[in-house]
Amino acid sequence: MLEKLKQEVLEQNLALPLAGLVKCTWGNASARDSETGFIVIKPSGVAYADMRAADMVVVNSIGEILEGSLRPSSDLATHLYLYAQYPEIGGIVHTHSTTAVSFAQARIPIPALGTTHADYFCKDIPITRPLSAAEVQTEYEKNTGVVIAQTLAENQVQPLEMPGILVAGHGPFTWGKTVKDAVYHSIVLEEVAQMAYQTAQLIANPPVIEAYLQQKHYTRKHGKDAYYGQK
Amino acid sequence: MLEKLKQEVLEQNLALPLAGLVKCTWGNASARDSETGFIVIKPSGVAYADMRAADMVVVNSIGEILEGSLRPSSDLATHLYLYAQYPEIGGIVHTHSTTAVSFAQARIPIPALGTTHADYFCKDIPITRPLSAAEVQTEYEKNTGVVIAQTLAENQVQPLEMPGILVAGHGPFTWGKTVKDAVYHSIVLEEVAQMAYQTAQLIANPPVIEAYLQQKHYTRKHGKDAYYGQK
Amino acid sequence: MLEKLKQEVLEQNLALPLAGLVKCTWGNASARDSETGFIVIKPSGVAYADMRAADMVVVNSIGEILEGSLRPSSDLATHLYLYAQYPEIGGIVHTHSTTAVSFAQARIPIPALGTTHADYFCKDIPITRPLSAAEVQTEYEKNTGVVIAQTLAENQVQPLEMPGILVAGHGPFTWGKTVKDAVYHSIVLEEVAQMAYQTAQLIANPPVIEAYLQQKHYTRKHGKDAYYGQK
Amino acid sequence: MLEKLKQEVLEQNLALPLAGLVKCTWGNASARDSETGFIVIKPSGVAYADMRAADMVVVNSIGEILEGSLRPSSDLATHLYLYAQYPEIGGIVHTHSTTAVSFAQARIPIPALGTTHADYFCKDIPITRPLSAAEVQTEYEKNTGVVIAQTLAENQVQPLEMPGILVAGHGPFTWGKTVKDAVYHSIVLEEVAQMAYQTAQLIANPPVIEAYLQQKHYTRKHGKDAYYGQK
Repeated sequence: MLEKLKQEVLEQNLALPLAGLVKCTWGNASARDSETGFIVIKPSGVAYADMRAADMVVVNSIGEILEGSLRPSSDLATHLYLYAQYPEIGGIVHTHSTTAVSFAQARIPIPALGTTHADYFCKDIPITRPLSAAEVQTEYEKNTGVVIAQTLAENQVQPLEMPGILVAGHGPFTWGKTVKDAVYHSIVLEEVAQMAYQTAQLIANPPVIEAYLQQKHYTRKHGKDAYYGQK
Repeated sequence: MLEKLKQEVLEQNLALPLAGLVKCTWGNASARDSETGFIVIKPSGVAYADMRAADMVVVNSIGEILEGSLRPSSDLATHLYLYAQYPEIGGIVHTHSTTAVSFAQARIPIPALGTTHADYFCKDIPITRPLSAAEVQTEYEKNTGVVIAQTLAENQVQPLEMPGILVAGHGPFTWGKTVKDAVYHSIVLEEVAQMAYQTAQLIANPPVIEAYLQQKHYTRKHGKDAYYGQK
Repeated sequence: MLEKLKQEVLEQNLALPLAGLVKCTWGNASARDSETGFIVIKPSGVAYADMRAADMVVVNSIGEILEGSLRPSSDLATHLYLYAQYPEIGGIVHTHSTTAVSFAQARIPIPALGTTHADYFCKDIPITRPLSAAEVQTEYEKNTGVVIAQTLAENQVQPLEMPGILVAGHGPFTWGKTVKDAVYHSIVLEEVAQMAYQTAQLIANPPVIEAYLQQKHYTRKHGKDAYYGQK
Repeated sequence: MLEKLKQEVLEQNLALPLAGLVKCTWGNASARDSETGFIVIKPSGVAYADMRAADMVVVNSIGEILEGSLRPSSDLATHLYLYAQYPEIGGIVHTHSTTAVSFAQARIPIPALGTTHADYFCKDIPITRPLSAAEVQTEYEKNTGVVIAQTLAENQVQPLEMPGILVAGHGPFTWGKTVKDAVYHSIVLEEVAQMAYQTAQLIANPPVIEAYLQQKHYTRKHGKDAYYGQK
């Protein structure tokens, strides 16, 4: 079932190490089928070089395995929670990309310092609060989804205007309308993290981008008045 | 029309991701035909892997599309303004290369600290002032060209002796007699940005290169007494 | 003898420059044969491009050459000492990977700041004390093994829960049940070093990962309740 | 003439961009023929992709062109001065490798902080004084050689025990018994520069390697008691 989506999920998982975002097996991408609502996700801990489309695991919205002989990604419950919260997203990616993780470990947001950031993220990329001991000890992966959703809500942003977040002490999650968009946002998030990192080394307290410039760049690419790219 | 120049503009656009200066679709290179004055520019938001020479867009000096079925780069108006100001330039490049953007976000010039810099840029690579809200909200891309030209004038430099600049909160633009030169200068600008970045981490207030050494290296490569390279 | 293990040791040595951990000839990987207890190790100072499986050197537990026409790695005595101390390890790797060496030169541990670290190392990756002049002048390589073992003991960690260490002023050693695991740990160690390095540039005194989160991630991957990866 | 050496000099020049030490045309390697004393050097400003062995320029010890239709490297006079001073060297390399240049621009030596450094360089890699205006304006390239030799003398080191140096505000020069050794030393110099750079970001005033450990590592690789590598 969902053979075409499995192929797509495979390809987008393979795109992560190619883009330099994933070492070893430290990443996972999933997609939601828009008709059935089923989720296709990478198997856990399998080397990228050995993965085939048939290894992708198909689960329903509560995580029951519908197809696939391998265990799904250990982060499945995070994906499921976010899909349940946000009907508008169709793909989710988790990586341990180096500089995004560094911000997550420093437990600070990635500040919106320039137009590269503004082109994709509507303000600072938020960082979650740390999970409590209870949240970690029971249903850890689901609770990771819970704090992500809490943080988006507290920051008053919709997931498609803030397509990524940092989990404190852990690393980035990104999403989008499709799994391809989610991978794209993981690339952008790491790149703007690198730019913000270097800017912070050059001067203390770098200036946040002007609201009107942030707005201009975001709307130039997104929404009804967008004029970047092709129709 | 201008098939040869389209091929050249395609190749120079493709050179940007190969040189590590452009991720995703975040860059554009254009050339001006010396006979007709027409501009050949990359289409907006098209993946590099899919671009063909026939996708390059030909416009006249006021941006009317003469040939091409795709939208031109959204930064076209910046290119047009600079071509109009500077008859001596034949190519323009814009990238979001990581370290140059970091200086642009920190809103500081790239200081002239060594001979690598001096070989191509006659002094510090300037940074523009931020655009005002009015300048961003109306004719943003043209106004980006305007502040670039203002900044070159204020710094009392000619475009061929200062073949690049940082736009505040945004990133670098470079230019040259040809689009190949403009790409070359975008490579040099990012590299001298990396050197200046690291130097600034090693010591506070690194010493600016001596004027006589700056002068020597610049004239060794440029002008009537140049002796670098082949005749 | 041990032709299959020689091939494995060759391949794992070649994996080191491919992973960007080793420049020139600055690395070595060895394996212990579980049946005979013999050690297979890379020859000293041979270019990776020229190495063949037949060049791997076979020694017994006191370092006598059993097979091979080339000199073994000059770090052989360190490997032998660690194999003698720890029957549970089957592979050892030494590299001069850039950021791990930077911590070794700064003579500070790699702090446990996030889940990437916690997935493989049970706490901070320790740094040895400097060797004394006497320890360097006589049996230097063996004494390097001695201080490694001392440091693990002082930190009250078993080698399989702390599969790597920094030798002060020198660089990282890693190990594992197999040489493939040891190489894997050298990749992880360099990556968590890079993350810790960048985190320390972003904020002074970054927060150490919560003990319960460290514990959760470690046991998610290791031990009887592990649920990461395939059965 | 010297066809074999031309091939060797070509290959070693090509090794520089492959090792990531040279961008554009910013590097040059030369060799001295031990029989005739003639120098074979890269032509000036020629793209690496286009260079053939026949493009290498052969000059005598005072720089007269004996063979070759292209101009020699503009840094020829520096090479000639060093060859004249040091009969023991057979190859010289100049690059603008990023981190070595950063130290040169900061005008500080590369400190000897670890065994990677000690394996090849007998103490801190020195930095020259800046050249005076007079030295730059007349015979600039020769005078670059003069300050290099002065600096080695002031630091009381022989060129084969200190096979590289930083020229203030400019970048590294390295040398060795052969051009292959000189290239090798340019790789090591950039790598130990990166390690020293990162170490200095981790802690202020990192400890210099103990003299006995520096000594041990240097003599382990060099001199009559060396036991690293093959006989």
